[in-house]
Amino acid sequence: MARLFRKTKHKLGRSPGSIEFTGERKVDKTRIRVIDYDPESLEEKELLTAEDCSPYRDLPPISWINFDGLHETDLLEKVAIHFGVHPLVMEDVVNPNQRPKIEDHQDHLFIVFRMVYFDEETLRISAEQISMIVGSNYVLSFQEKPGDVFEHVRERLRKGKGRLRTHGPDYLAYALLDAVVDHYFVVLERVGENIESLEEQLLENPSPELLQDVHRLKREMILLRKSIWPLREVVAALERTESDLIQEKLGLYLRDLYDHTIQVVEAVESFRDILSGLQDLYLSSISNRMNEVMKVLTIAATIFVPLTFVAGIYGMNFDHMPELHWRFAYPVFWAVILILGGGMLLFFSRRRWL
Amino acid sequence: MARLFRKTKHKLGRSPGSIEFTGERKVDKTRIRVIDYDPESLEEKELLTAEDCSPYRDLPPISWINFDGLHETDLLEKVAIHFGVHPLVMEDVVNPNQRPKIEDHQDHLFIVFRMVYFDEETLRISAEQISMIVGSNYVLSFQEKPGDVFEHVRERLRKGKGRLRTHGPDYLAYALLDAVVDHYFVVLERVGENIESLEEQLLENPSPELLQDVHRLKREMILLRKSIWPLREVVAALERTESDLIQEKLGLYLRDLYDHTIQVVEAVESFRDILSGLQDLYLSSISNRMNEVMKVLTIAATIFVPLTFVAGIYGMNFDHMPELHWRFAYPVFWAVILILGGGMLLFFSRRRWL
Amino acid sequence: MARLFRKTKHKLGRSPGSIEFTGERKVDKTRIRVIDYDPESLEEKELLTAEDCSPYRDLPPISWINFDGLHETDLLEKVAIHFGVHPLVMEDVVNPNQRPKIEDHQDHLFIVFRMVYFDEETLRISAEQISMIVGSNYVLSFQEKPGDVFEHVRERLRKGKGRLRTHGPDYLAYALLDAVVDHYFVVLERVGENIESLEEQLLENPSPELLQDVHRLKREMILLRKSIWPLREVVAALERTESDLIQEKLGLYLRDLYDHTIQVVEAVESFRDILSGLQDLYLSSISNRMNEVMKVLTIAATIFVPLTFVAGIYGMNFDHMPELHWRFAYPVFWAVILILGGGMLLFFSRRRWL
Amino acid sequence: MARLFRKTKHKLGRSPGSIEFTGERKVDKTRIRVIDYDPESLEEKELLTAEDCSPYRDLPPISWINFDGLHETDLLEKVAIHFGVHPLVMEDVVNPNQRPKIEDHQDHLFIVFRMVYFDEETLRISAEQISMIVGSNYVLSFQEKPGDVFEHVRERLRKGKGRLRTHGPDYLAYALLDAVVDHYFVVLERVGENIESLEEQLLENPSPELLQDVHRLKREMILLRKSIWPLREVVAALERTESDLIQEKLGLYLRDLYDHTIQVVEAVESFRDILSGLQDLYLSSISNRMNEVMKVLTIAATIFVPLTFVAGIYGMNFDHMPELHWRFAYPVFWAVILILGGGMLLFFSRRRWL
Amino acid sequence: MARLFRKTKHKLGRSPGSIEFTGERKVDKTRIRVIDYDPESLEEKELLTAEDCSPYRDLPPISWINFDGLHETDLLEKVAIHFGVHPLVMEDVVNPNQRPKIEDHQDHLFIVFRMVYFDEETLRISAEQISMIVGSNYVLSFQEKPGDVFEHVRERLRKGKGRLRTHGPDYLAYALLDAVVDHYFVVLERVGENIESLEEQLLENPSPELLQDVHRLKREMILLRKSIWPLREVVAALERTESDLIQEKLGLYLRDLYDHTIQVVEAVESFRDILSGLQDLYLSSISNRMNEVMKVLTIAATIFVPLTFVAGIYGMNFDHMPELHWRFAYPVFWAVILILGGGMLLFFSRRRWL
Repeated sequence: MARLFRKTKHKLGRSPGSIEFTGERKVDKTRIRVIDYDPESLEEKELLTAEDCSPYRDLPPISWINFDGLHETDLLEKVAIHFGVHPLVMEDVVNPNQRPKIEDHQDHLFIVFRMVYFDEETLRISAEQISMIVGSNYVLSFQEKPGDVFEHVRERLRKGKGRLRTHGPDYLAYALLDAVVDHYFVVLERVGENIESLEEQLLENPSPELLQDVHRLKREMILLRKSIWPLREVVAALERTESDLIQEKLGLYLRDLYDHTIQVVEAVESFRDILSGLQDLYLSSISNRMNEVMKVLTIAATIFVPLTFVAGIYGMNFDHMPELHWRFAYPVFWAVILILGGGMLLFFSRRRWL
Repeated sequence: MARLFRKTKHKLGRSPGSIEFTGERKVDKTRIRVIDYDPESLEEKELLTAEDCSPYRDLPPISWINFDGLHETDLLEKVAIHFGVHPLVMEDVVNPNQRPKIEDHQDHLFIVFRMVYFDEETLRISAEQISMIVGSNYVLSFQEKPGDVFEHVRERLRKGKGRLRTHGPDYLAYALLDAVVDHYFVVLERVGENIESLEEQLLENPSPELLQDVHRLKREMILLRKSIWPLREVVAALERTESDLIQEKLGLYLRDLYDHTIQVVEAVESFRDILSGLQDLYLSSISNRMNEVMKVLTIAATIFVPLTFVAGIYGMNFDHMPELHWRFAYPVFWAVILILGGGMLLFFSRRRWL
Repeated sequence: MARLFRKTKHKLGRSPGSIEFTGERKVDKTRIRVIDYDPESLEEKELLTAEDCSPYRDLPPISWINFDGLHETDLLEKVAIHFGVHPLVMEDVVNPNQRPKIEDHQDHLFIVFRMVYFDEETLRISAEQISMIVGSNYVLSFQEKPGDVFEHVRERLRKGKGRLRTHGPDYLAYALLDAVVDHYFVVLERVGENIESLEEQLLENPSPELLQDVHRLKREMILLRKSIWPLREVVAALERTESDLIQEKLGLYLRDLYDHTIQVVEAVESFRDILSGLQDLYLSSISNRMNEVMKVLTIAATIFVPLTFVAGIYGMNFDHMPELHWRFAYPVFWAVILILGGGMLLFFSRRRWL
Repeated sequence: MARLFRKTKHKLGRSPGSIEFTGERKVDKTRIRVIDYDPESLEEKELLTAEDCSPYRDLPPISWINFDGLHETDLLEKVAIHFGVHPLVMEDVVNPNQRPKIEDHQDHLFIVFRMVYFDEETLRISAEQISMIVGSNYVLSFQEKPGDVFEHVRERLRKGKGRLRTHGPDYLAYALLDAVVDHYFVVLERVGENIESLEEQLLENPSPELLQDVHRLKREMILLRKSIWPLREVVAALERTESDLIQEKLGLYLRDLYDHTIQVVEAVESFRDILSGLQDLYLSSISNRMNEVMKVLTIAATIFVPLTFVAGIYGMNFDHMPELHWRFAYPVFWAVILILGGGMLLFFSRRRWL
Repeated sequence: MARLFRKTKHKLGRSPGSIEFTGERKVDKTRIRVIDYDPESLEEKELLTAEDCSPYRDLPPISWINFDGLHETDLLEKVAIHFGVHPLVMEDVVNPNQRPKIEDHQDHLFIVFRMVYFDEETLRISAEQISMIVGSNYVLSFQEKPGDVFEHVRERLRKGKGRLRTHGPDYLAYALLDAVVDHYFVVLERVGENIESLEEQLLENPSPELLQDVHRLKREMILLRKSIWPLREVVAALERTESDLIQEKLGLYLRDLYDHTIQVVEAVESFRDILSGLQDLYLSSISNRMNEVMKVLTIAATIFVPLTFVAGIYGMNFDHMPELHWRFAYPVFWAVILILGGGMLLFFSRRRWL
């Protein structure tokens, strides 16, 4: 049951602040990539040890150090010591089930949030935890596995155009958050397309499989809400923060980002409402169909069961059944049958069943 | 899936604040119309280039410059530079999926909101984004395509009567917002008429098509709420604003406008509740009908199936069946049949099934 | 669609603050009645023109001027000028679809609210807009048509006992509001009686007509809530107001009135919950009935269909059917039939279907 | 319709503050009991007239004067004058449909709330209004009829142990409120027992009567919530009050009482949720049963109707039916019948209908 | 009815603050265990009498005294006197139905909360009340019965590593709360696993038993929410407290703990939503199945009932039935039968019933 709720048992009995990886190991070796830049120059490197990171802490150019893979806790512990990060923070970094949050630790901000992906095959939304530590001239980012939505940010850094190169690490952190929220939009767009397609199919030809898809999407929306609501709080807190690490001119961008998270929240709520509407629609179309089926059965049975009875009577072998010997008994029988049957049809069409 | 959620993919990877049109292109060429007025005189012109707009920025008469069409981003970028508008604002203008909002940029206010139309054929509500930049003596308005709800405002400007000509650009902005909110009323009136008509038809003769209409209207109400809730916030923010661009005497009008947006919000909520009620009503009338059908079937089958069995018995060909040779067997058979059938009818009428 | 949402189209294109009657004309001629009183004396008169009203503005005895009928906008416009009332206020007076609200205009308060009536025939709640302008020594009240719930207030004024004659126009305004809220109680009492009676009937003998009544009452509760929620805000604002027109000693009475509006709000919410409960109850009793019907059908069919088959076998005309010639075939046939039928009955009673 | 909403018509047309009994008369004669106590001594008496009460107002020992019966308004009016109580307060005392509330009148506090009883026969919760006026050395309490939940408080007063005798009238008022809230616990415990028993019965053998009980309890919970929510506000207001009549050391006890009212509120909400769950459970078990019934019918009909048709064919009297004359026609017929029937059974068991 | 709502009757009539055990007696004899530690040393002992506890109150090393069993109220009363605890607090300790809360009594904090267990057999969540009194150098903890989730804390104390030994009693109290909240995670993980498994089974093969399990889990979630919501408030209050007993450096840990309680709250809410979704899914799959059953019945009956009628006709014994004597009557009969039957099948496949 990894999806609905996850917290590994190994945590129990450990002292708070002990750094122990509790997630699923998704990568062989932690990969450390650094991008060191100032308005004039940019340098990209891969680092191998925690010690390699330490020079980037205080040197003037802005450094973005990204870690892919969280299971090498020794390495991360050393990084934590080099950058003066509290063990409780590092514990959150390596425990990939955090609720999105922001913490202000004087000389650095700690931000944790979730990046989401949508698998259209299974209609499942999967999430990966991203942690960021934003200092005065560095940004550390931690991911569970390689592959992310930050490639666009790297491109913009490399091209050197735009504000990224000329602004500080706070703008870089904003750009990363913005990339994540933009990816929520991509996911929601896909979900929205699936909902529209489900709606069309439901209106045309409701089937139990469609209902299961509606149910699955609805559950994913419940889980998605658990990621996006606290992210909204994180962005709001970032906007209101009094930390010196966030410069005032970033306010406008953060306000814009906040508007986007609100849009995501509202879309998730609308999708839930619309999916509930689809469930209701399905149930009533099932009722409609059952009604149709019942009418057909009722018409067939109600017409032919009495007629069969009449036929049965004249199949009896009583010695004395005067009708059997009448000359026109058989045509009369047919007349009675047709009148009876016609009467029933009239009755049903009066009730608008036909 | 343009309707439920829309955010074009081209946005991804672009730097925030880059002005790139992301909507559907709805017009060939951007049309620029300016109305230049003071209490004594009024002049209407069509402009061709961004440079033509610049004189209107600082000249004393109040200017309303309206842009129909958002895809010529070069032109709009130049306009932005002439009027000192932040690129992030201009990005929002050309991205026609903004959440309604208001931003105070010292020397101008930026307001974005949605104008809605109701198509009674498809029961769909469509929306068009309108952006306004309100300066000390100008109002810039941006629309996706020509055709709007502002014609009444233009007429009042031309006639020169009323407060429009004597008040500042803040009153013009208010008049435009008021026209948009008034059009929400028109849309809601139409929706309300459709709901009343659906209700009458449902009570008379429930059909699956009616239910689909109820479902569609309910979904539109969910989407409409996403437009009107933030608009309410915009008007409230405008009322509370401390910007010098909004004069104090406008307060009373804004309060009035706010009351109207509240009325729209409440109507949307009531409509959702009433539409839910209609769905329930439909489902229960379907149940009622099924019940009726079942009763007819049950009565027919329960009376004639046993009788057919009795008739079947005396159609058997056993050599030794004494009843067959009795003198009054046949009349007795009929008596039994009638008593049995009458008994069943009595049973059903006792249960109030007839 | 006058009931769910109403705002006349004529409003569109008019300048805000233009006084134009937009309601349904419910009376031929506006009737102006004035009651002029102080603790010692009381005078009742009918006035004919707007000019007749003006003396009552500043003269010391307290004057209550009541207008029945809102379509003579010329007259009302003149009254507005005499009493120094803002055109935007007068526009609200003659537009009978306002959301209840209170506005403080320095030298007078403007209060608008809705008076409700309940028609037990149609189970519909109808509303009439009442506006009040409360000055330092006058109260103007505007109604759509003659006939109101204020007769008790007039009686108390005439009798001269109680606080009405000795207190100011603020107490008169309170007394009018109190009369309106008291009438909400009357309406709710009637609605409550209807709900109790519906509940009893539903428990005894559920019918589709009852469900339609439940649906209708539920919709009326949705509409009623739109009248009473803002009225609650109006009374709360009146209690908190810092206007000199409301004397401090009125606070206790307003608190009492506020408690009453809260009681109305809570009753409306409870009624909605209870009506939803009735709908659920109806649906499940329908399901119960269907279940009963199905059992009867199933028992009849499941017993007699197999027996008919057995009878059918021995009605066949094969040349070689040894059973037909057995001596005791017929009694054996009956024994088999009775055992089969009895077995089925046993099976059904085991399943508690009988 | 006394239960869902009650406000007598006689109120209409009366001036606010006129003391007129509007409830149902539940007792012949108002009974006045006084308990006069200080830490050393206690005296219990029955009083006959309003004048008898007046000495207890200012005399040093603490006096608790309890009135059973509210219809003798003359007597109560005199009491009001003796104790300096505002007529609007006295009006609330004798109108037994008040929303629970607290009012601070400088030299006394007025508290009104509801005592509830649960009748397990009818599953109905009935309520009685209790009013308290708490002065500096007296407590007046008013009940609709004799018999209350205060006997335990009287016992503790008489025994003289505990804090009751040594603390002031504020502690006595607290003790009375505490006794009332404790009785809510008793009622909720009974309701909870009923819910548990209903749940067990529903799981075992769902019947329409059980559903009606669930419906009834749910409606009572809606009504109970109307009593307890405002009581919670009353206790919270009492805790926060700045009145000199409530001593600071009572704070801890009031906080405790507040916790209890919160517990009651939460229990009522949980009960509503659980009862809704029971309704859903009932509906789905009805659906399950219907499904069972339908399967039996379908299996019986689907097997025997085709077989009966086959038997019917060979009961026909055509002159030329070669099969009838075949030597082994009859055994072959049986073989066909058994294969057909067996095939159907196989089909049904494949579909898991058996 | 111990589970839905519990408050023993013995409480009625007792003075507030009288210490009387009201729970179910779950242990024979109260067991008192003390762990006395400072950074250098640790001592564990079992105590026998209340007097044995008193030395631990003021002696410098930090003491954690744990009581298993609450029925020996004499002993607990003596402890209360030794440690200066208010009787109202001690009353709450021995009444095991408290709402989780925190109270600041100057020289000690009183915290009460609930520890939960999940029984996967019955799908029931059981709870045990834990009370803590946190003083300047001691922590008293009270449990209903032996066996708890604190063993990990004891281990960490004994091992002497981590912060536990070097920090004060506030950190110990935090560690105990953290252990309890961690156990909520364990319970939720189990519940989540059960929900996932129920979901899979429902999608595969819905059965009434599964629905009852869904219902049970949903009710447990309602009850669990009653434990966790107030616990969240407790932790929030602890974080905000201005008590000297909580050192400032604990803030970070409490913030972390608060995040965990929020996660529990959100998980409970998500589970409720998901369980509701499962109920809907079950109901619609039942409807689907019924629809399937109905189609089979309808197809069988609608094809064979008319055919049986035709066969019945030619089983009649009229003297004059010309068809009976035709040469090819029997083959023609079969042709008619097959055409009729085939037509019906075509009709059904057109309607997509096959």
